[in-house]
Amino acid sequence: MLKVGIMGASGFAGEELIRILLAHPEVKITALAAKIERMHVSKLYPWSKAMLDMDCFDMRAEDIGKKTDAVFLALPHKVSMDFAPVLLKQGKKVIDLSADFRIKDIAVYEKWYEIKHECPEYLKNSVYGLPELYRRDIKAADLIANPGCYPTSIILGCAPFLKKKIVDTDYIICDSKSGVSGAGRSPVQALMFTEIATNSFRPYKVNFHRHMPEIDQELSNLAGVKIDVNFTPHLVPMERGILSTIYLKLAKKINTKEALEIYKDFYKGEYFVRVLEDGQLPDTKNVVRSNFCDIGIKVFPEKSLAVVMTAIDNLVKGASGQAVQNMNIMYGFEEKLGL
Amino acid sequence: MLKVGIMGASGFAGEELIRILLAHPEVKITALAAKIERMHVSKLYPWSKAMLDMDCFDMRAEDIGKKTDAVFLALPHKVSMDFAPVLLKQGKKVIDLSADFRIKDIAVYEKWYEIKHECPEYLKNSVYGLPELYRRDIKAADLIANPGCYPTSIILGCAPFLKKKIVDTDYIICDSKSGVSGAGRSPVQALMFTEIATNSFRPYKVNFHRHMPEIDQELSNLAGVKIDVNFTPHLVPMERGILSTIYLKLAKKINTKEALEIYKDFYKGEYFVRVLEDGQLPDTKNVVRSNFCDIGIKVFPEKSLAVVMTAIDNLVKGASGQAVQNMNIMYGFEEKLGL
Amino acid sequence: MLKVGIMGASGFAGEELIRILLAHPEVKITALAAKIERMHVSKLYPWSKAMLDMDCFDMRAEDIGKKTDAVFLALPHKVSMDFAPVLLKQGKKVIDLSADFRIKDIAVYEKWYEIKHECPEYLKNSVYGLPELYRRDIKAADLIANPGCYPTSIILGCAPFLKKKIVDTDYIICDSKSGVSGAGRSPVQALMFTEIATNSFRPYKVNFHRHMPEIDQELSNLAGVKIDVNFTPHLVPMERGILSTIYLKLAKKINTKEALEIYKDFYKGEYFVRVLEDGQLPDTKNVVRSNFCDIGIKVFPEKSLAVVMTAIDNLVKGASGQAVQNMNIMYGFEEKLGL
Amino acid sequence: MLKVGIMGASGFAGEELIRILLAHPEVKITALAAKIERMHVSKLYPWSKAMLDMDCFDMRAEDIGKKTDAVFLALPHKVSMDFAPVLLKQGKKVIDLSADFRIKDIAVYEKWYEIKHECPEYLKNSVYGLPELYRRDIKAADLIANPGCYPTSIILGCAPFLKKKIVDTDYIICDSKSGVSGAGRSPVQALMFTEIATNSFRPYKVNFHRHMPEIDQELSNLAGVKIDVNFTPHLVPMERGILSTIYLKLAKKINTKEALEIYKDFYKGEYFVRVLEDGQLPDTKNVVRSNFCDIGIKVFPEKSLAVVMTAIDNLVKGASGQAVQNMNIMYGFEEKLGL
Repeated sequence: MLKVGIMGASGFAGEELIRILLAHPEVKITALAAKIERMHVSKLYPWSKAMLDMDCFDMRAEDIGKKTDAVFLALPHKVSMDFAPVLLKQGKKVIDLSADFRIKDIAVYEKWYEIKHECPEYLKNSVYGLPELYRRDIKAADLIANPGCYPTSIILGCAPFLKKKIVDTDYIICDSKSGVSGAGRSPVQALMFTEIATNSFRPYKVNFHRHMPEIDQELSNLAGVKIDVNFTPHLVPMERGILSTIYLKLAKKINTKEALEIYKDFYKGEYFVRVLEDGQLPDTKNVVRSNFCDIGIKVFPEKSLAVVMTAIDNLVKGASGQAVQNMNIMYGFEEKLGL
Repeated sequence: MLKVGIMGASGFAGEELIRILLAHPEVKITALAAKIERMHVSKLYPWSKAMLDMDCFDMRAEDIGKKTDAVFLALPHKVSMDFAPVLLKQGKKVIDLSADFRIKDIAVYEKWYEIKHECPEYLKNSVYGLPELYRRDIKAADLIANPGCYPTSIILGCAPFLKKKIVDTDYIICDSKSGVSGAGRSPVQALMFTEIATNSFRPYKVNFHRHMPEIDQELSNLAGVKIDVNFTPHLVPMERGILSTIYLKLAKKINTKEALEIYKDFYKGEYFVRVLEDGQLPDTKNVVRSNFCDIGIKVFPEKSLAVVMTAIDNLVKGASGQAVQNMNIMYGFEEKLGL
Repeated sequence: MLKVGIMGASGFAGEELIRILLAHPEVKITALAAKIERMHVSKLYPWSKAMLDMDCFDMRAEDIGKKTDAVFLALPHKVSMDFAPVLLKQGKKVIDLSADFRIKDIAVYEKWYEIKHECPEYLKNSVYGLPELYRRDIKAADLIANPGCYPTSIILGCAPFLKKKIVDTDYIICDSKSGVSGAGRSPVQALMFTEIATNSFRPYKVNFHRHMPEIDQELSNLAGVKIDVNFTPHLVPMERGILSTIYLKLAKKINTKEALEIYKDFYKGEYFVRVLEDGQLPDTKNVVRSNFCDIGIKVFPEKSLAVVMTAIDNLVKGASGQAVQNMNIMYGFEEKLGL
Repeated sequence: MLKVGIMGASGFAGEELIRILLAHPEVKITALAAKIERMHVSKLYPWSKAMLDMDCFDMRAEDIGKKTDAVFLALPHKVSMDFAPVLLKQGKKVIDLSADFRIKDIAVYEKWYEIKHECPEYLKNSVYGLPELYRRDIKAADLIANPGCYPTSIILGCAPFLKKKIVDTDYIICDSKSGVSGAGRSPVQALMFTEIATNSFRPYKVNFHRHMPEIDQELSNLAGVKIDVNFTPHLVPMERGILSTIYLKLAKKINTKEALEIYKDFYKGEYFVRVLEDGQLPDTKNVVRSNFCDIGIKVFPEKSLAVVMTAIDNLVKGASGQAVQNMNIMYGFEEKLGL
């Protein structure tokens, strides 16, 4: 049994990791840390009563390392970069769900996150944990930079077309919609039930969201040219799920059928990416609490327009599920084990 | 035009008062106070943009008095008792939505609210603002103690039977369910969208809610004997609405039809209480954003049991709507004006 | 008092008309028709008990005409074109909420709605009831073609830029999101509570929605060139509200501030269109149950991109509220009376 | 691998069975039947795409029997009694989720369900599938009558007190609240998203619900005297979960601590029943998508009142999860396997 620890167990991603790992047949949770007063995990998460017998408290990274083989960092950015080096030096494998090791260009990271990166030397070996693109590197990695939720939904939606180089890379529009859990667990007036459940749907941070540099980096890698995406996130009055509607100008006249073949071909053998049939469109409810990414495509050749729609669960394929998928790859387990 | 002010404009009851009073043809809002940094009301409530041009800020009671004829106190308990005397001394009429002037027995108030009452001399003349029971007193009052939301739903549901003295007063069970706005606007972890919208329905404060002494006082007055109610509040994953299911043991064999007649007779001429026909049951959605209280009754003579079900909007008939109803009575306006 | 009737009283738009008109000081509802067995309106809508005393039943248009001065047709397309002529011949004014008199090009109408238009002669004099564009014509009209919900949100969002002719009209992208009431009231599996409230957010009818010809017609009129919009509607798990995120390629380098001035200038004096300040974005909850359209704008000059976001209540400004606004204009009432 | 079939795969209980059984390591689904036109299960349930490759269609019971070792009947009452005998005669084990084999008194069944029972001879050997009460019988059974959702929540909540004979059995009040999935999947106006998500909370079928005879039967068995319960079900605007608030008059003066000991003792060793600590109350969200039943208790000795609050997921412990728990017991698997 692989012994794993979770730092940041009191956030949504941490909670989701507990939920997933409890059902994983090859893993045993041996440490739970969070910046809270020490309490039994069943007090923190009453749903887990009788399922997990362990305290959660503000443990030092070093002490977690001693109890574990691998550690998930479900922490805010900046905090991860303090802890990851400690664990890596102890020889532990680290799967970091923050943004700290995702952006390869330090200047870009420091501009968007408005802090100094304290251990840029780790960026060289960190692997962007999107298995469908970087499986081979993930297998060999010690430090995984687990992708953000919006980026996962957008990169998987654009990859096949970009790789084929049939997209006008100057005018990519990503209109994304996320459930409220994407905003985290801290008590904030604007995220109270009474604010959201009153028919509230709204955009925020238009072309200003911190996931943008990550999207740009990966789309640029795929296309081989620098891409500067347009990105509008929106808040949907539901707990979970992201749906991204991506508008791509096609440089080549193809129809929906041909587009679907490009996508099916690109994702052949990928269990967690489901390219939908012609006429079917994704719905977040079909992927919620699963690690799947559903992709639907409509092409309008007369307009040179492709509309790609992707759906994921922001806490699963967009966070903790993908983290476990990465863990499975790193340790040679079946990739979908426990997912 | 009657000039009115609202203290506590940043809470739910305050917001609802603004909404209702903006549509009231005989009233002009002339002062808005709240414990916030000064801002235009359209920043506090973007829905009100173009409807109301006024700043809201932390104003002294005295200054509000100077600008108004009547003042609504949509404040937490304890705060109201500081401000009401100031306004009353200025000759203003005060409608207080807190609990401070509801409980006639100071010892009971001080036990349940765990503070000393600072102006008990005002309790003598304060009127419990339930128009269906105390209309005549309200007409003449300067200080209204506007009823709580749960009490309104329960007192209106029990009054006809209690007045008829056909209820076993030893074993009254009130199982009440409230929308989340009843819990107020302060950001609290347990009331975040992501906590509630995940299929959360739960009881709280079983026989321990601060509305209990108020319920006991009024039911005892109606019955002429001391009543000690059993009260279980629950939180429903919706914004608004209270439904109370009240179980009464009947001391006399009557059937549903006879019960309905007792209720219809008791509430004859009351516009805001709608006694439903036999076979119909209340639904909170039918009273939401209105000042109505819907009452459905089923009697099981063979079990000597009456089940009375009442529905109100906790923010309207359970707070701000009833406050405006009281204002209408105090100033001789048509009782349903603006409601 | 103006006597008005509603045909199609059992649908959402019909219900909303009742709600609005009950509070309108110059109007009296004198007829309610719907394709249902005859019943008191309080049985159809328990919320209206004590507010309106009238039966609703399957009445002939002619009979409704006899009881009214003006009639709202809240009917499906095709049904309206059967009834409108009857009423118009009786000299009644008609406000039609269906699509039957919106599309001036009969061939386009017949293609999208897949039926033959039976009274094309009325199209000449019908007025597209968007007051912010056609107020003068509305004043004089007998037959109003009340706009669709999505078109209202998109046309108001594009009008100022199109009129200024600074938009690349070849590549307009409208990504719209609507609450579930937009889909109507008929019981359909896919719209059950249990299907939607399970974290369901989804696109539908990509570039295939019947509101498209209406949008194209009006945008083309504004721009003076033929526009063929891209339109993706989505279903949001909430009752009401539409938010449209519109991506416009600007032909001229302007910044957000300049754009806001263009919009404020265009909508000067328009009570129901609120152009938000720089940095503010619309939220459907701010317009729900009101007739306002909120517009937020962000321009990215370096990308020649403008993102215009509009929010309306699909049942109010997107249907019944706008219908009453039109009625107010037609009869010389204050435009915002009762709204 | 145990081969299992599901009849009624298109309903909520059927869908939940698929979800649970797909994760069960000792089971293989080999037949899916439903009264629908033949389609691949991924068309019926898009979430299952890539997880299950099988058609679902209107299969005869006999043909299902040929493909399976055990069959779950997730069918309406009356339909089950047609199919169960066919399967039993083939030597299959049957777990029936309908009411057809729950009520031992045929007259009572026929009165409440308003049909003739066609195979009363099977009632003798059918076992009421509540493992916490009847585990030994379940082990040996061929035909399980899987309990209803409300009954599960109420029987588990009352059993320890009734068994101890310290309850006044004349006046048991069960105030239950259920998520909307309890009402089934058929498209019904009253269960549309737009009807429920508008702040709708309501009681229905007061002392008139078909689960009552089942509750009475089992409570009477436990108490050893005939019990005639009072039962008010309510509809909560959420997908899943039942919370029952049960008011019991105690014949003996005990306090909360003593009550908790009685419950902990009664449920010692029961994994799926979690008796909460003093001061903790159940919340449906803690049991949703799990097979747990959480029980909270508050006793008011001075009032001789016990308030017992239980929470389950109506589709899991209240239906499909309990069915799988029964299967595990029947086949000697670990009781919580796959749950």
